[in-house]
Formats: sequence, C-alpha cells, structure tokens
Amino acid sequence: MTEKRGPGGPIGFALSLVRILRGRPRIPTSLRSNQALGVILNRRSVRRFTQEEIPDEAFAAILEAGRLAPSTVNLQTWSFATFTLDAWQATLGGQIPFGARRAVTILADTNRVRRVLEAFRETPLVEHTVAVMNASIAAMNMTAAAEALGLSSVMLSDTGRSGLLDLDYLRERLALPDHVVPIMTVVFGYPGAGRPPMPPKLPLEAICFEGRYRETDPAVMEAWMAQMAAGYKASHPRSSLDAQLAHYTSKIGAAEAALRRMILAEEDDARPPSEAPL
Amino acid sequence: MTEKRGPGGPIGFALSLVRILRGRPRIPTSLRSNQALGVILNRRSVRRFTQEEIPDEAFAAILEAGRLAPSTVNLQTWSFATFTLDAWQATLGGQIPFGARRAVTILADTNRVRRVLEAFRETPLVEHTVAVMNASIAAMNMTAAAEALGLSSVMLSDTGRSGLLDLDYLRERLALPDHVVPIMTVVFGYPGAGRPPMPPKLPLEAICFEGRYRETDPAVMEAWMAQMAAGYKASHPRSSLDAQLAHYTSKIGAAEAALRRMILAEEDDARPPSEAPL
Repeated sequence: MTEKRGPGGPIGFALSLVRILRGRPRIPTSLRSNQALGVILNRRSVRRFTQEEIPDEAFAAILEAGRLAPSTVNLQTWSFATFTLDAWQATLGGQIPFGARRAVTILADTNRVRRVLEAFRETPLVEHTVAVMNASIAAMNMTAAAEALGLSSVMLSDTGRSGLLDLDYLRERLALPDHVVPIMTVVFGYPGAGRPPMPPKLPLEAICFEGRYRETDPAVMEAWMAQMAAGYKASHPRSSLDAQLAHYTSKIGAAEAALRRMILAEEDDARPPSEAPL
Repeated sequence: MTEKRGPGGPIGFALSLVRILRGRPRIPTSLRSNQALGVILNRRSVRRFTQEEIPDEAFAAILEAGRLAPSTVNLQTWSFATFTLDAWQATLGGQIPFGARRAVTILADTNRVRRVLEAFRETPLVEHTVAVMNASIAAMNMTAAAEALGLSSVMLSDTGRSGLLDLDYLRERLALPDHVVPIMTVVFGYPGAGRPPMPPKLPLEAICFEGRYRETDPAVMEAWMAQMAAGYKASHPRSSLDAQLAHYTSKIGAAEAALRRMILAEEDDARPPSEAPL
C-alpha cells in the first residue's frame, strides 16, 4: 500500500481519479437518440441544489410514480412521509439535507395491509423482505420521475438522520406504529452548478452471470475499492472513506438492534454479546 | 358479504371491476407532454409477450440501467443472473414465464463486497435490508429502461419458481454462495395485444402523510380488497384471490425458514414450532 503505484500511493490515487472521471453510461449507439433511456441512464445522485422551488404539480407527479410502482401481489407495502421545508423543520428540525426543497421518507409498511390480510402473520423475515423490496422499488420510480421532470435527487440512509441507520429516532418523530420501517429519505430539488462525476461503478462482467454464479475477480474489487477511497478523498479532503465507514459502523449496531426488536420482536438482551449495539 | 351490493355480491363485484377499469395515472395537465414522465407513469406489469426477439443492444441497455442504479454508499450489493430462452431451459428448465424472451434474476449480493469491506460482519439484518433495498432499486431501474425501449416486463416473486418464495431451489440451481439472496426475476419482451388494466392502486391520501403517521381509512382498505378480489376473479375465472393467497402461504413458511438459515444462520430446529415450514 506504500508503493507509489499501489492503490494507496500518489500515482495509484491519480489513476483512480482518472478512472472515475472517465466513467460514462454505456449507451449503444443505436439507442442514443432515445430520450427516455437517456434520462434513466444519465441519472446522478446530486448533493447540491438551487433554491428554485419544486412546483406542486411536479412533486405530485413524483408521488404518483411511487403510488403506481409495481409491488409483490400488488400489495403496495409502502408509505411516504412527505416534507416541504417547513414540514421538515417542524418534524425533524433544521434544513432538508444538501439544500434540497422537498423530501420523502420511504417506509416499508405492512401495517396497512395487515388490517385486511393475514398473509404475513408468522413470517417476519419474508414480510420485512417483501416490504423493503416494494418500498425500494417505489423510491426508484419516484427518482426516475424526478429525472424526467429535470429535477435531481439523492437517496439518504444516514445523512440528516433520515434513513435505515436512525430507525428508532424516525419511529418516534414520525409516530410510526409496528410494521412500519423507515428505510431511506429521498430529497429532491433542481440540480446546482457542477454535474458530479459518476461514482465508481463495477463493470457489467463483475455483476452479471449466466447459469452458475461467478465470483468477481479480486483485482476488479481492489481497483474498485481504490477508486472508492480516491473519490471520497477528492470530494472530502479532510476526511476519508475509512473514517466515513467507521461512522456508519458506529451506528449499524444500534440499527441492527432496532431491526431485531421491530421485525423479530427480540428484546435487546436476547442478542448475543457480539451483536450488542456500539 | 352475501348482500348483492356488498363486496362479495354481484353488484359489488361489478362496481369493483368498473373502479379497476377507471384506474388511470394522474398526470397533471401541464406535464402531459413530458414523454419520459409518460413512460414512467404508464408502465404496466405485462404478462403476455410477442415472439419478437429483444435485440442484444436493448438488453445491454437494460442491464446498464441496473449497473448504474443508485445504492447505499455506492456499494452495488446486487448481482444479475441473465437468461436467454436457451439459458433458462438449461438452468431452470422449461420456458421463461408468460412467453417472455429474456429474464434477469435479481440477487441481493453482499458476498462480493464482503471480500473488500468489513462493514456488515455482525449485523445480518442491516446487511440483508441494505442488500434488498439496493437490488430492488436496480430491478426498478431496469424495468424503467425496458419501458423506454418499448419493451414490457413483470417482476416475479413466485411464478416459474424464480423469486423470494423459492430461495433454496434458486440457490441450488444458480450455485449461489452465502450472502447472495435471490429476491425476484424480471422477465422482458415486447408487449402482446391487449393492454392490461391498472391493478387497483390505493389513493395517494391513503399512502402519504405529512408529520405524524396516519392510519388508512378502513373503508378504503375494504374497497381496495374488494377490487383485488374482483380483478383476480375476472382474470382467473376458475380461481380466486383467496386460493392464490393460500398458495403463497403454503410456500412462505419454507421461504421464512430459508431466510432464517441464510441471514440469521439459524438451524431449522431453532425456530418456534409455529414458524415451521408448511
């Protein structure tokens, strides 16, 4: 790691940055005139927004994309906590992260469907998995609709205490009943100046296979990790990916305990000591 | 339930069907000329396809939408098992469901990232939740790309033994290692004749709230269940929604046991008797 050309050395760092900046969606030539495909493949997670307000009709269209998303057996196991700037201030305090103008906290919600269906009563992991699947699908469809409207967004699982890593906090603030699990917050706005580069994406060969599962080449994973670290350092010169991961790790234990309580109805002291919250 | 106008009676049945057929995306007038938004809001789950082949370039663009989907900390915790007709026959046997031409089984995969990161070692529920979130997001982005290309799709969690309800079967067929959980299969093709009606969707007021969580009006849920049952009966005259739900229930116990083994490393006999597989 101390070699100049190694992933931790200055040349490795520069090479990783070059690789990040070269990242582009691969759109087959014959499909480049397809506007809707371009909207989908050119999406970026944006963390800088203008102060322009989102028209109510545009925000309504985003929510409609969530409402009409596909779901397992059409069960629609989601709820959306919607926020204007004022609603965020009143409910969570402060500003919507990154200066975004509207936000939606995505909840994996089987509370509603449990009132009319007995499907999931004794299978909490299947219930949770299905609910998270569907709610995530809805979140992506909202994000795609925002892109179509010229808006940008980013999905948050930690920033602003608005995602999976702050389960207990959000349950209290949003007065969530059992069987409603906050998984992320999507914040929306018009993109500010400076289009962010694509974060380092694994090549298609590393994530696709036909027939039997194929392990990813370790060299591909190492090059990717070097790009992840370099990209983080370049955008956060006073921090590091390792420091950020350590921050997540410090919260993941508490989130795990909350999930065990919420999904498996376990008491905190039922967990083995190694899984105690940090 | 035996009243003529009740949800189980013939008039209730007819009213429910009328309500289904009236279902439309609500697109604000000012946004109706937005083509990309129309692609997203007019998507339907399609179960009838033509025999037209999907060009390789179009399928590549769909996979690219999966590859470029957003994910928690850009961890890309997904893998895609891709199928042509021949690959499906060789790996799972028979035809791709509904006469679709290509398929992608979506895997929530932390096996890959575990090789280079220690983030999730002792927090299996957070790990699983994050992996399912990201993989579902990728699945939706692929579905949206297919729509942009004039293709249709449907996400399967049971049909063709290709989703969450056939975990053990898919693990064996695809030779999946630990920390790789199949959650659904998306099948793709050009849509056949007859655009399916929108399945009964809950109104926005029922799934959105501002500030504190709001329980859905029970009457809304009952009307929705009546539409679900009527819609199922209309499209499957010799079956019923109850029969279909009973079929799922018979498989959910086994899926729960498989998830407990895979995620919580529990032995089958560690479960309470009420949760034994059926």
